[in-house]
Amino acid sequence: MKLDSIAKRFRIDKPKHFRIADHDPAECCGLTVDKAEAKVLLDEGIKRLTELQQRLYASNTWSVLIVLQAMDAAGKDSLIKHVMTGVNPQGVEVHSFKQPSVEELDHDFLWRITQRLPANGRIGIFNRSHYEEVLAVRVHRELLAAQKLPDSLEHKKIWKHRFDDIRGFEQHLARNGTLILKFFLNVSREEQRKRFLDRLDLPDKYWKFSLSDVAERKLWPKYMAAYEEAIRETGRDHAPWYVVPADNKWFTRMVVAAALVDALDRLKLDYPKVTGQALKDLDKARRALSRKGA
Amino acid sequence: MKLDSIAKRFRIDKPKHFRIADHDPAECCGLTVDKAEAKVLLDEGIKRLTELQQRLYASNTWSVLIVLQAMDAAGKDSLIKHVMTGVNPQGVEVHSFKQPSVEELDHDFLWRITQRLPANGRIGIFNRSHYEEVLAVRVHRELLAAQKLPDSLEHKKIWKHRFDDIRGFEQHLARNGTLILKFFLNVSREEQRKRFLDRLDLPDKYWKFSLSDVAERKLWPKYMAAYEEAIRETGRDHAPWYVVPADNKWFTRMVVAAALVDALDRLKLDYPKVTGQALKDLDKARRALSRKGA
Repeated sequence: MKLDSIAKRFRIDKPKHFRIADHDPAECCGLTVDKAEAKVLLDEGIKRLTELQQRLYASNTWSVLIVLQAMDAAGKDSLIKHVMTGVNPQGVEVHSFKQPSVEELDHDFLWRITQRLPANGRIGIFNRSHYEEVLAVRVHRELLAAQKLPDSLEHKKIWKHRFDDIRGFEQHLARNGTLILKFFLNVSREEQRKRFLDRLDLPDKYWKFSLSDVAERKLWPKYMAAYEEAIRETGRDHAPWYVVPADNKWFTRMVVAAALVDALDRLKLDYPKVTGQALKDLDKARRALSRKGA
Repeated sequence: MKLDSIAKRFRIDKPKHFRIADHDPAECCGLTVDKAEAKVLLDEGIKRLTELQQRLYASNTWSVLIVLQAMDAAGKDSLIKHVMTGVNPQGVEVHSFKQPSVEELDHDFLWRITQRLPANGRIGIFNRSHYEEVLAVRVHRELLAAQKLPDSLEHKKIWKHRFDDIRGFEQHLARNGTLILKFFLNVSREEQRKRFLDRLDLPDKYWKFSLSDVAERKLWPKYMAAYEEAIRETGRDHAPWYVVPADNKWFTRMVVAAALVDALDRLKLDYPKVTGQALKDLDKARRALSRKGA
């Protein structure tokens, strides 16, 4: 099995027809956790990602935006840790979007997102993102009230408008040199239950648990419907969604690493070319520095 | 003559058919500078603007974005001074967009704009704006090179894409509670020449003059073509352009004040209603504070 074929397998190329029910959270492409192949593939992916990140940084024309969305305990944090550790932190920044501040609520919902966009040459990872605006905010309507929209603008079409605004936002970024990759870590409700129970068994994971996590589980079908529509409405060639099986963490990591390598590869990044006078200047510098006592 | 009829007169309601040549920079609607009526109208406009700004601030659901674009010496700075002085500065912020910084150039062209958007309850004035991206950058292609777009993204459709991105951006803001008003101060080339000469005659206006101002005058037709297309492509009901005659400063100010009043009026802003328990609480507070020594 090759890395790029794995990436392609989980990219949603026909978002209009996307149904979550068609995607098995426990899928492993026939690999098993014991297979040495899986470990080899992940390591290979991380090595290539490291090389690609160096070129991205040196060429300084593209930026990369990685959006991570998932239900709780799907493994976002550990994914970031395992896939991005080893990549030069000077070129990577992770932003976790939590409850908006009062200042953020006093602006449109993309305002705080825009401020954290990666600069040229950087990889920006959004741990949750603007998609919460059509997921959590849609499931919990009281969050929308906190945004203090004028009455005349809060109506039935609001989700349609938000999808349209998000599409326009991402298209603008793509047109201006941002590679956008969006991942939905697709964990099953049953696997989430097991992971929550694990947290309750391990004192050093207590901090990750909150009673509200149990309440949120009751809203699972509403969340799935919101995810399904969000992926349908916002999947684009320039900003594709990947729906990644997340019941097996080792597999999730491998798929995401593969997708990143595949997409960065296709940018055909290279180190900036030095030619003409600049090359002669380098030669001059070389000669000058070669003299003893220079 | 009424304020709101003046506002309407210079709003471009059919942008697709807009031609700069149809608009006289010296137009004054038959008023003369000596007419007391002009002064009365401006003062009336500023007074109503002050009241409306208080309601905007108190209701805290809308923000107002005023975009000012013009050739040099059209009177942007003095317009801001004369129309906005007297409005509570706590609710008004002015941003002048000059040459982008290195950090700003490392992001998409709307990034620095977004950061300066007015919060709910505020009036934000952009002295120059994202429109420079389809005006100065279009006339001076070397400015585009400084934006370090990936080669594959810099092509003939770039202006079409920028108009589309700007339309999407403004639509998103409008949907989320920003009233957008865009003003092109339409000064004639001859009037600009006179004002430049005035600057060269007055030592305390020297600082406003630069030799490059003369060079820019040669690009006048290119600028006019760029303005014409920008107004055609980005005029929308939720973000209209006003093309304001700018050869007579007193008239420019009156038209802009009238347009602001008219647009803010139509938001039907009101002070937040206090009812029910909150009203009883106020009564309780009133009684408590009425006791001597309270």
